[in-house]
Amino acid sequence: SVNPDLGSERQTASFSVERLTALLDGGTEQTRIRRAVVEAIESDPVFSRENQYFQTQNERYEAAVRKAVHLQKKMHEMGWTENGPEYKYIYRALSGDVAFLLHRVFMRSISVLGSDRQIAKWIPLATQHKLIGSYAQTELGHGTYLQGLETTAVFDTATQEFILNTPKISAMKWWPGDMGRSATHTVVFAQLYIHGKCYGIHPFIVQIRSLQDHSLCPGITAGDIGPKMNFEHIDNGYLLLKNVRVPRENMLSKFCEVQPDGTYVRQGSQKINYFTMTSVRISLISDEVLTPLMKACTIAIRYSVVRRQSKLKPGEQEAKILDYQTQQEKLLPQLAAAYAFHFTNGYLQELFDRGYREIQRKNFDMLPELHALSSGFKAVITQHCTAGVEICLRACGGHGYSLLSGLPSLYTKILASCIYEGENTILLLQTARFLIKCFMAASAGQPVPPSVTYLAAVKHGKCPAKNKLDFLSPDIYTEAYQHVAVRLTSSAAAKLQDLIQSGVEKHDAWNQCTVQLVQAAKAHCHYIAVKNFAETMEKLETKAGIQKIMKHLCDLFALHGIFSNTGAFLHDGYTSAAQMDMVTAAYLDLLAVIRKDAVPLVDAFDFTDESLNSALGSYDGQVYQRLYEWAQKSPTNQMSPAYERYLKPLLHNTLSKL
Amino acid sequence: SVNPDLGSERQTASFSVERLTALLDGGTEQTRIRRAVVEAIESDPVFSRENQYFQTQNERYEAAVRKAVHLQKKMHEMGWTENGPEYKYIYRALSGDVAFLLHRVFMRSISVLGSDRQIAKWIPLATQHKLIGSYAQTELGHGTYLQGLETTAVFDTATQEFILNTPKISAMKWWPGDMGRSATHTVVFAQLYIHGKCYGIHPFIVQIRSLQDHSLCPGITAGDIGPKMNFEHIDNGYLLLKNVRVPRENMLSKFCEVQPDGTYVRQGSQKINYFTMTSVRISLISDEVLTPLMKACTIAIRYSVVRRQSKLKPGEQEAKILDYQTQQEKLLPQLAAAYAFHFTNGYLQELFDRGYREIQRKNFDMLPELHALSSGFKAVITQHCTAGVEICLRACGGHGYSLLSGLPSLYTKILASCIYEGENTILLLQTARFLIKCFMAASAGQPVPPSVTYLAAVKHGKCPAKNKLDFLSPDIYTEAYQHVAVRLTSSAAAKLQDLIQSGVEKHDAWNQCTVQLVQAAKAHCHYIAVKNFAETMEKLETKAGIQKIMKHLCDLFALHGIFSNTGAFLHDGYTSAAQMDMVTAAYLDLLAVIRKDAVPLVDAFDFTDESLNSALGSYDGQVYQRLYEWAQKSPTNQMSPAYERYLKPLLHNTLSKL
Repeated sequence: SVNPDLGSERQTASFSVERLTALLDGGTEQTRIRRAVVEAIESDPVFSRENQYFQTQNERYEAAVRKAVHLQKKMHEMGWTENGPEYKYIYRALSGDVAFLLHRVFMRSISVLGSDRQIAKWIPLATQHKLIGSYAQTELGHGTYLQGLETTAVFDTATQEFILNTPKISAMKWWPGDMGRSATHTVVFAQLYIHGKCYGIHPFIVQIRSLQDHSLCPGITAGDIGPKMNFEHIDNGYLLLKNVRVPRENMLSKFCEVQPDGTYVRQGSQKINYFTMTSVRISLISDEVLTPLMKACTIAIRYSVVRRQSKLKPGEQEAKILDYQTQQEKLLPQLAAAYAFHFTNGYLQELFDRGYREIQRKNFDMLPELHALSSGFKAVITQHCTAGVEICLRACGGHGYSLLSGLPSLYTKILASCIYEGENTILLLQTARFLIKCFMAASAGQPVPPSVTYLAAVKHGKCPAKNKLDFLSPDIYTEAYQHVAVRLTSSAAAKLQDLIQSGVEKHDAWNQCTVQLVQAAKAHCHYIAVKNFAETMEKLETKAGIQKIMKHLCDLFALHGIFSNTGAFLHDGYTSAAQMDMVTAAYLDLLAVIRKDAVPLVDAFDFTDESLNSALGSYDGQVYQRLYEWAQKSPTNQMSPAYERYLKPLLHNTLSKL
Repeated sequence: SVNPDLGSERQTASFSVERLTALLDGGTEQTRIRRAVVEAIESDPVFSRENQYFQTQNERYEAAVRKAVHLQKKMHEMGWTENGPEYKYIYRALSGDVAFLLHRVFMRSISVLGSDRQIAKWIPLATQHKLIGSYAQTELGHGTYLQGLETTAVFDTATQEFILNTPKISAMKWWPGDMGRSATHTVVFAQLYIHGKCYGIHPFIVQIRSLQDHSLCPGITAGDIGPKMNFEHIDNGYLLLKNVRVPRENMLSKFCEVQPDGTYVRQGSQKINYFTMTSVRISLISDEVLTPLMKACTIAIRYSVVRRQSKLKPGEQEAKILDYQTQQEKLLPQLAAAYAFHFTNGYLQELFDRGYREIQRKNFDMLPELHALSSGFKAVITQHCTAGVEICLRACGGHGYSLLSGLPSLYTKILASCIYEGENTILLLQTARFLIKCFMAASAGQPVPPSVTYLAAVKHGKCPAKNKLDFLSPDIYTEAYQHVAVRLTSSAAAKLQDLIQSGVEKHDAWNQCTVQLVQAAKAHCHYIAVKNFAETMEKLETKAGIQKIMKHLCDLFALHGIFSNTGAFLHDGYTSAAQMDMVTAAYLDLLAVIRKDAVPLVDAFDFTDESLNSALGSYDGQVYQRLYEWAQKSPTNQMSPAYERYLKPLLHNTLSKL
C-alpha cells in the first residue's frame, strides 16, 4: 500500500508521466524494450542486489564476477546481442554492478588499434570469453599526461620479441579494472625502444595470468590496489613487469609497426584516437552520471513528501519537508539539471554521430569542436551532477547518511566520474584552449565551428528585461548566458595577451590565466546547455502538458544558474541589481510551481524499487518500515565477540550495586 | 628518508613552524602536553589504526570497544584524569575511533537534568563503568523538532512507575550511539502523560540490557541500525519499548518532578538546556570539523608537491602539481579557512566561557546571542570545512579516491557534522531569526548584543579601494563583508514586512523568505569570521614571521570569499566591476605567495603519520612505496573463491586455442 502522503502527490500531476517517460527514452518502443530488459534482469535472482550494502569488498567482487558470467548465459537465453536494441539497457538494469567491463575496453582497443590480423586472432577469443582482458595505461605516478608513462618495451631483434619492464615504482601500472584478480591478458602502454631510440607510447598485448591455473606468468607481479570509496565490485589492480617478453606480433599495429629488422613504420592517421576518447567521455554521461543524479532526485524527493518535520503553521500537522522553501531550493534545481543534461546528452550524441559519419568520409574537421565540447561537458556535467547527488543526500538528513538510503553509494560512485577519463580541471582547460583559439580567429574574421560562432558577435547591450515575468523568456536568459560566456572568454584572452606582451613567457602566462580560463570554459558549456534545453523544449509536443512542465524546468535550470552566480551577470552591468532581484523573485516563484509536480517528475524516470535499492525512495514511500526491516538484516545485528571479550569483564561486578 | 621534492619545500619557510604550532596549541606548554599524550597513545599497540581501511563494520566496532576499555586502564596508568590538562588531547590522538562516547552524554545529561539524589546514585556507577549509558532522543520519524517525539511515558499512580511505549514505528528510537550493541542503560526522551494529560517531553533512565548476560530486558527490542557512510565503529541503534516500566525515581527531575499522587511540579529554569546545546555545538568544531580539514589539507598539500604531472614549460621536468594555479586555487583557500576557523573557534570559546560565568550569576542575557552565533557558526563551519575536505580529495585525483589516502574517510566523517546536532539549514534560520529581531530592534533605536550592533550603523557608501593592494587592507575587506551582511539582513527584513503587509500570513511570509534569510545568516557569520581573523592577526607577535604569514592567510580567506561570491558585493554597487577585477588580481597574486609556505603551513598542524593514516600525506612524502606496501596487505589480495567457481569453468577450454 502506498503511503498516502506520497500517493496524494500523484493525483495532481499536470502532465502525463507515461508520455514523459517515453520522451526520455526516445519513444514508446524504447520504453517497452527497456522495461522488458529490466524485468528479465530483476526477476533473475542471480542479479539480485539485496544485501549489497552489507557486503565486504571481497563479497562484492565475487558477486560481480558471478553476475558477469551469468550474464553471458542470460543474453544467449534472451536472444540479446551486443548489437541489439536491448544491449544498452542491460548495464543500467544491473546498476553497473558487474565485472569484466574492462574486457570490453580491451576488445575495443584491439579493434581500434590492432591490425586486421590481430583483430582476427584476438576478438573471437575475447568474444567467447576464452580469456579475460584488461587495459593497463595509468601508472602509479602518471595519469593524465600520457607522454610521461615510464613502462618500457625494448625490441630485441634477436628473438623478435619486446621486453617489457617497470623501471621504477612510479612506473607500476595502477588502477586498471579487472586486472587485480580476474584478467588473464591486458593491453600495456609502454615507451617503445628500438636500438636504444625511444619512439613514444605504444600498446602491447601481454598475458599476465596462466590460463591453466590462473597463476601469475613469469616476470609478472600483480594484485588488487585495495579499498576505494566505491567500485568495491571492481578489482582495480597493479602490475609490475620484469623482463616480460612478448612476440613482435603483440604490439597493436594498425598505425605503427616494428618490422623484423627493427625498422619503425608509421601508417595511417592517429587522429582517430582522439575520437575514441571523445566517444568514451560522451558515452559515460548517461549511465555513470545522469542515472545516479536521477536516482538521487527520485529518492530525495519521494522522501521529502513522506517525511514530516516541524510545523509551517502553528496548530497544524507537521509539514512535509518539501513544503519548505529551503528544501525546494535544494532539490528542485537538481531535478531541473537532470532534465537539462539529459537533453545536453542528446545534443552531444547527435553531434558525435555527425562527426562519426564525417570521419568515415575521411573528414576530420569536426574533431576539434567535438573534443572541446565532449571535454568541457564531461567536466561540467560530472561536477554539477556530483554536487547534485551530495545535495540530495544532505537534504535527507540522518537517514540520507545511512547506506540503506542508497544515497551514499550513489555519491561515492558519481564522485569518481569527476576523476576518471580525464581530470575535470584539465579537461576544462582543453575546452578553454579551443575557445581562446576560436575567439582569436573569430576576432580576425576567420570562420569558426558552429558552437562558437557566437564569440564573434560580441554585443555590448544590456539585458532588456523589465519585470520578473520577462525572465521566463528563454530569449532573455539565453542571451544573458551568451553575454557572460563571451565576456569571460574575451577577458581571459585579453589578460593572456597582456601578460605575453608585458614579457611573461607564454606557458607562464597561460598558467596565470588558468583560474579564469576554467571559468570561461564553464560559462561556455552552461550557455550551450541552457540554449539547447530551450530549443529542445520549444520543439516538444504541446499535448499532455509535456511542453509546459519542460518549460518550467528549463526556466528553473536557467534562473538557478543566474541566481547561484549573480556576480558573473552583474559584473559589467549587463544585468542590473534591479533585474537581479527580478531573477530572484522569478526563481523563487518557480520553485513553488514545480514543487507541485515534483513527484510525477521523478516518477517519469521510471526506476524500479530494485534498481533504486533505497529504503527512502521506493515507489510506495513506506520509509520507516523498510529502514527497520533492512537494518534487522545487517551483520552488525549478529552476536559480537566484543561482549564476551570486553564488556562482560567490565560489567561483571555491577549487579550487586543496582 | 624524505622525498626530496617534499624536503625542499621545508628549506624556505618564511616563518618558524614550531612557533606557529605553539600558537595553534595555545602555548608551548600545551604543545608539550599534547605531544606527550600522542606519544603515549601511539606507542601502545592496542590503539593502532593499522589495517583500519580493511576492516568490516563489525571489526571496527570491536576495535572501538577494545580501545575504550583499554583507555580506562591507560588513563589510570598515565595518571590522566577527566579534569586534567591531557584529557582534551586523548580523543584527538585516537582520531575519534573509540566507543562509549555516548556514555559521556549519558553522564552529562544526568548531571544537568538530574536531581542531587539521582546524580549521587548514577554518576559513580557510570564513572566506574559499572553500566554503559546511551542517550535516546532521536526517533525514526523525528529529529530536529523535539516536540514531535512520539514515545510515551504514562505515570501509573498505583505502582509509582512510568510505563514507556513506542506507539508506532515512526516513534522508534533510531540513531543513538552505543545503543545498538553495547549500552545497558539509556536516557529515553518521551511525552509524559499523567491522568491522561500530556506534559511534553521528559527524560527517563531506562535499563535496556541485562547486567548479567547482556540480554535485552523485558519489553525491549533493540539492535544496530546497520551500515552508514562512516562511523562504522559506533553501534548506532534502534529501540522499541513495549510496556517498559521504570520507577518514579527514574525521571530526571532537576526541573520537573512527578509527585507520588501524580502532581506535576515544575521547578527552576530550563534555559540551561539551550546552553547545553550551545556547548555541544561549539565543542564539536575543533575535533570533528577543524581537525579533519587540517588533516585533509596536510595530505593534499604534501601530495601536491610530490606528485609531478605534465609540463609547465616545454623541455623541463614534469611540474609539481602545486605549481599549477588551478591546484593552488583549490587547496590554498582551504588552508586559509582552516586557520580562519581555528581562530573563530577561539572567539566562540571565549564568548561561551563569558556566557557561562554570567549564567552562574543567574544572568541569562547572553543566551540569545550565544545561541545565534553557535548555531550559525556550527552550520557555516561544518559546511565550509566539508566542502574543503571534498576539494582536497578531488584535488588528489585517483589516489585521493583510494581509501588508503585517508581522504575518503575524512570526507564521509566530516559530512555527518552537517547533519548531527542540528541540521544546518534549520540552524541558519535560527540565526536569521535572531538577526531579523536585532535588526528591527536596532532600527528602532533599541540596544542589541555586541555582535550585531553593526546592523544599526548602515552605511550607504562605496568601497574606497583604488588599486589591488588596497584589497590587502583588512579595513577595506572587513567593511565590505559588513556591508553585505547588513544589506542581506535588511533586504530580507524588508521582504518579510512587505509580504506581511500585503496580507500574507506570518508563517507563510517567513517560509517565502527563508532562502534569503539563510543567505543573510551566512553573510553575518562570514563577516564575523573575517573580522575576527583580522583582529586576532593584528595582535600576534611579529617575531619569527608568524604575523606576516597569518596576514597573508587572513587576506586570502577574505578575498577568496569575495572572489567566490562576487554578486553579493557587486549587487548594490558597493564594489564596482573595476574593484572586483582588483580583488581577482590580488587574490591570484596571493596564491603564488602562500604557495611557497604551503608545506610549512600544514607541517605546523603537527599531525603524526599515525594520526593521518594516509599513504599520500606522510611526513616523508614516500607516496608510491606506501601505496604499494599497503595495497599488498588488503584482504582483496587473498585467494578468492571466484576463480574456482566462475573463472575456471569459463577459461577451461581456452588453452588449446592460444
